[in-house]
Amino acid sequence: MNGHVHLEESDMYESDGKLFLTEAFNVIMEEILHKGTDLKEKVCEWKDPDQLRALLDLDLREHGESHKQLLQRVRDVARYSVKTCHPRFFNQLFAGMDYHALTGRLLTETLNTSQYTYEVAPVFVLMEEEVLCKLRSLVGWSEGDGIFCPGGSMSNMYAMNIARYWAFPQVKTQGLWATPRMAIFTSQQSHYSMKKAAAFLGIGTDNVFIVQVDESGSMRPEDLEVKIVQAKSQDAVPFFVNATAGTTVQGAFDPLNRIAEISERNGMWMHVDAAWGGSVLFSKKHKHLVAGIERANSVTWNPHKMLLAGLQCSVVLFRDTTNLLMDCHSAKATYLFQQDKFYDTSLDTGDKSIQCGRKVDCLKLWLMWKAIGTHGLSERVEKAFALSRYLDEEMEKRDNFKLVCKVQCCTVYKPEVVYLCLLCYISVLSHLF
Amino acid sequence: MNGHVHLEESDMYESDGKLFLTEAFNVIMEEILHKGTDLKEKVCEWKDPDQLRALLDLDLREHGESHKQLLQRVRDVARYSVKTCHPRFFNQLFAGMDYHALTGRLLTETLNTSQYTYEVAPVFVLMEEEVLCKLRSLVGWSEGDGIFCPGGSMSNMYAMNIARYWAFPQVKTQGLWATPRMAIFTSQQSHYSMKKAAAFLGIGTDNVFIVQVDESGSMRPEDLEVKIVQAKSQDAVPFFVNATAGTTVQGAFDPLNRIAEISERNGMWMHVDAAWGGSVLFSKKHKHLVAGIERANSVTWNPHKMLLAGLQCSVVLFRDTTNLLMDCHSAKATYLFQQDKFYDTSLDTGDKSIQCGRKVDCLKLWLMWKAIGTHGLSERVEKAFALSRYLDEEMEKRDNFKLVCKVQCCTVYKPEVVYLCLLCYISVLSHLF
Repeated sequence: MNGHVHLEESDMYESDGKLFLTEAFNVIMEEILHKGTDLKEKVCEWKDPDQLRALLDLDLREHGESHKQLLQRVRDVARYSVKTCHPRFFNQLFAGMDYHALTGRLLTETLNTSQYTYEVAPVFVLMEEEVLCKLRSLVGWSEGDGIFCPGGSMSNMYAMNIARYWAFPQVKTQGLWATPRMAIFTSQQSHYSMKKAAAFLGIGTDNVFIVQVDESGSMRPEDLEVKIVQAKSQDAVPFFVNATAGTTVQGAFDPLNRIAEISERNGMWMHVDAAWGGSVLFSKKHKHLVAGIERANSVTWNPHKMLLAGLQCSVVLFRDTTNLLMDCHSAKATYLFQQDKFYDTSLDTGDKSIQCGRKVDCLKLWLMWKAIGTHGLSERVEKAFALSRYLDEEMEKRDNFKLVCKVQCCTVYKPEVVYLCLLCYISVLSHLF
Repeated sequence: MNGHVHLEESDMYESDGKLFLTEAFNVIMEEILHKGTDLKEKVCEWKDPDQLRALLDLDLREHGESHKQLLQRVRDVARYSVKTCHPRFFNQLFAGMDYHALTGRLLTETLNTSQYTYEVAPVFVLMEEEVLCKLRSLVGWSEGDGIFCPGGSMSNMYAMNIARYWAFPQVKTQGLWATPRMAIFTSQQSHYSMKKAAAFLGIGTDNVFIVQVDESGSMRPEDLEVKIVQAKSQDAVPFFVNATAGTTVQGAFDPLNRIAEISERNGMWMHVDAAWGGSVLFSKKHKHLVAGIERANSVTWNPHKMLLAGLQCSVVLFRDTTNLLMDCHSAKATYLFQQDKFYDTSLDTGDKSIQCGRKVDCLKLWLMWKAIGTHGLSERVEKAFALSRYLDEEMEKRDNFKLVCKVQCCTVYKPEVVYLCLLCYISVLSHLF
């Protein structure tokens, strides 16, 4: 092997690569961040699947393409993708663009770190610890545990698994054959991840008892009591109740104090799926919506939604101080989590996860938080609510919109096929910051 | 509300944001991609946890910071993070830097798309389909299914859950109480995600039967047969065998044809955890190592490892053509997966996932593949093996290195505390491309 020749090859690759990256960055700036946020441009250049297949030329071939062709690929991907940063993107529970969060994301990608041990991710292990601590303190907990997960569904699944281990620790080694049938409680309007979690964890969707909601979409606590009695009569052990803070469609908040009281009385784990609504904790004005959240055992919260941190940014927080998360999930792989390191190995938090390699999701939130402060995040949430009220008032004046239902933090209207709900406020909001 | 004033505010935020992003991009180029790949620079500026906490000033405060302070934050994060792109980063199963993959990742982050439906992710739904199809064809399957997952552990977990549903479909609704005790088989040297999966899915780690390996680290098929008999004698139903193609520490390949024969004879689902070794499928010279892989029911494969696509990039592939993946995982949420759309709703693949929001992981691999072609990826794999042999020869000449064990695709040496194994070849490799 001739090291010299290889070094030259390598240098050439490096400089070509950097040039391509820089040119592509300019395309990204122009096509997504300039055009994609411009009201005069479309949210999406819609194409039918067959048309789009032809336009994109997705086929992967034997030989590579030229620099110029590849830059055109970047342009095409940007062109035909939906601009979720566009002020008129109203489709999902996320939208908008925070430039500091985006910077955190590009930095994350370039560093290409996996968040398992302090030695490989020193900055991010400490940063995750700090961000989780701060989020927990907003919930009202001075101690506890938590972890960043790949999305809210996974965070909810973590909570359900930890609750199960807390109730029946033998499940980790012996499986569900060593436990009684278990019952889960969640409202009609709660997120479908509850059923997915029950199926994936081996509990089964039939063991998810669906609790009725009132007209605003909030869980009816009296029906929770009915469903607990029903489960017990079927010899299923109630162990987990999921309360929702901000339902997906109506934005409803379940009455947490009343649910906490019932959970405590029945010895159940109480989880709050605050994936969407958790961010009200930043607002003195609106945090009453989640009064009682500190009585929960666990909380899911997605800063990639109302706070605009960007996908994916989801945490599950635990009130527990007995190391349940680590005890439940750890496999103590000796090749990765050696105990003879020259630092405190409790910083090797990766074994708390059910993943091995784990993307860094804390940096985008941390950098955004550093940039605008707790105060700025609080303003962001309050503006979302203010815009929601404003739209509410405006819509009431119009004949061509029909009110579908009124809820705590937003209103859903349906003008034929247009679907306007709380999602759009965030999008509008992102344009104003 | 004065739209005009808000538009000005918005414009100011936009231009400040873009300026920050651009300046931060330059810092990223300089600190990570120039310095971080420079042999004269350190892989990591090591600090003890307490020192690092003080240096980073992680605290999140009431008010935001200045443009200048924030840019310094970006510099500090880069400075104290491990440079996984450095030619001397030897710590994990990933390393190096592919600039086209990185471009795909920055594009992914800026578009901020969630991969659930065609309407919100048109480009990426089709692209995922194409990439999965191409990877399946390398496995030897002209049809089948698959999905990108957040890492190899999750891909393995998916395979185990689909296998369980295939063997006992009632588990989705009724849970494990409606099934007999189940048995999983995997080798001593297999990845710890098998035990994590068994625990998380409610099967329990005691129901993972550990099969012995030979001196190279490969599963001994005759011991698999012994363990199957043992499981049956305990009234556990053998349903899932995990074969490893490229073990974590020794890089060993289990004998897939012999394991397939045993699986078929016992009516078991055969999974291949090829997270690390799957990439040999690109090489005509080395793909004999996974001979028989086409007889498996599912395969995990992480292009973020040997192919350098960047974290996270992991797929689980299925030979199944009966829609098991969708049937097992779907929850049919009506707010997201409406059936009255004006395109073929089989393109709304999100319900195959146990996640709801799902990051786009296909673009980085697709763009890299477009850039260097199947041929380039094949060369990348072959160079990894060539460098492995080269190191092997060099090391044998030295007295201060002790051979720990010899395996199929690499060699592990231990000079006191230095840990050299197949990981480093990839790192070296990345420097040569």
